Amino acid sequence: MTRFALTLEFDGGPFMGLQRQSHGPSVQQAVEDAAFAVTGEAVVMHAAGRTDAGVHALGMRAHLDIAKTITPFRLMEALNALLRPAPVAVLDCEEVADDWHARFSCTGRSYVYRIANRRAPLTLERGKAWQIAKPLDAEAMHRAAQALVGRHDFTTFRSAHCQSASPLKTLDRLVVRREGEAVLVEAAARSFLHHQVRSMVGCLALVGMGRWSEAQVAEALEAKDRQALGLNAPPDGLYFVHASYPEA
Amino acid sequence: MTRFALTLEFDGGPFMGLQRQSHGPSVQQAVEDAAFAVTGEAVVMHAAGRTDAGVHALGMRAHLDIAKTITPFRLMEALNALLRPAPVAVLDCEEVADDWHARFSCTGRSYVYRIANRRAPLTLERGKAWQIAKPLDAEAMHRAAQALVGRHDFTTFRSAHCQSASPLKTLDRLVVRREGEAVLVEAAARSFLHHQVRSMVGCLALVGMGRWSEAQVAEALEAKDRQALGLNAPPDGLYFVHASYPEA
Repeated sequence: MTRFALTLEFDGGPFMGLQRQSHGPSVQQAVEDAAFAVTGEAVVMHAAGRTDAGVHALGMRAHLDIAKTITPFRLMEALNALLRPAPVAVLDCEEVADDWHARFSCTGRSYVYRIANRRAPLTLERGKAWQIAKPLDAEAMHRAAQALVGRHDFTTFRSAHCQSASPLKTLDRLVVRREGEAVLVEAAARSFLHHQVRSMVGCLALVGMGRWSEAQVAEALEAKDRQALGLNAPPDGLYFVHASYPEA
Repeated sequence: MTRFALTLEFDGGPFMGLQRQSHGPSVQQAVEDAAFAVTGEAVVMHAAGRTDAGVHALGMRAHLDIAKTITPFRLMEALNALLRPAPVAVLDCEEVADDWHARFSCTGRSYVYRIANRRAPLTLERGKAWQIAKPLDAEAMHRAAQALVGRHDFTTFRSAHCQSASPLKTLDRLVVRREGEAVLVEAAARSFLHHQVRSMVGCLALVGMGRWSEAQVAEALEAKDRQALGLNAPPDGLYFVHASYPEA
């Protein structure tokens, strides 16, 4: 058995999410089906994160155990050929130690959330960003975001379906910056609760629109109550960017 | 009658092209249908350029003559509401003089062509760029491109279906630059022949891949023969960026 680590890029639009689902297509199923076609083995994929329906990835990490003798390059090429037309691509593939685990060895995850701050409906970016017509104050959003950085009980920003044992998480970084008509929110942590990034972005958007004061974000956090959540941002704008691991 | 100038953004993927076609959907038909729904008038749209099937626009200019009394802002909002779900958006709308013509008054047009220079198939950029796996030498492409700048007979780079009276055109600017894994080709001229940008990009890509010498681009131009064309780039990577007009 050889363990292969994959770096995946995907358009989450046509999928029910990364994880295999009984009721529709998933990124996991697409990769496992392609791996079966290459190897004839019932391969199981483990990924660093479990992204929701409609959420994209620029650099998701995952691993597969394969008995067949194959080089990482040949495996990557074969998977990419067999994944078509599903919008999933293997950007990189390497052999890793048997105890390297895409999910459990992962020590850091980062996301970017893309808001298209413009009046006109989206065309080329449709499904790839959250369109907000009202002009956003990105600097106010950034200031408000800093109240969320650090170790907190993120119950307010947690989905009812979250399977995490604890609502306590340490948010390492939450940066809001404007780039032309785009407003980008970058988030990094060891791990996140289910819907945490989208829930934080939703509340920051309320600040950006002037509907919430900056202090209300801190108050929502302190409430430790899902009812205190202002708004959950749609999945379209969310991208899993990077997973980090200790140096071997 | 009031003449309104529109700035349009569209994803060319689902269209047979900008111009109305009998055999499929067009950007022109989408806008004219929306304008009819707003005004009850059989409005005809004139655009600065006639982009092909699959070609996108970031800032196409067009005009409509409308009898109904309506402000530019209300017209823009109504068109955007009625254009959904077609991936066409009105970014700007203004009243112009009766002799302002989106096509005939236009004194400059610019395009950008996007190449995704990477081995992995495209996912998020699918239909939005030309994927070339072989590493491209963007600097060699840029040097070779300079032979095309200026006033030339562009017969080699002209589609058999081109309706222009003359193959003589003045190319003002042709810049090739790398931006991460993307290679961008920027082209500007008063006007272009049909397929001119895609044909130029196709030959420059051959240079980038090392299959053509830099001198072969100049030789293809001098041949004044469509048979001398190396390669026509696919429409996916082409974006109409900007149309310019004399100051009123």
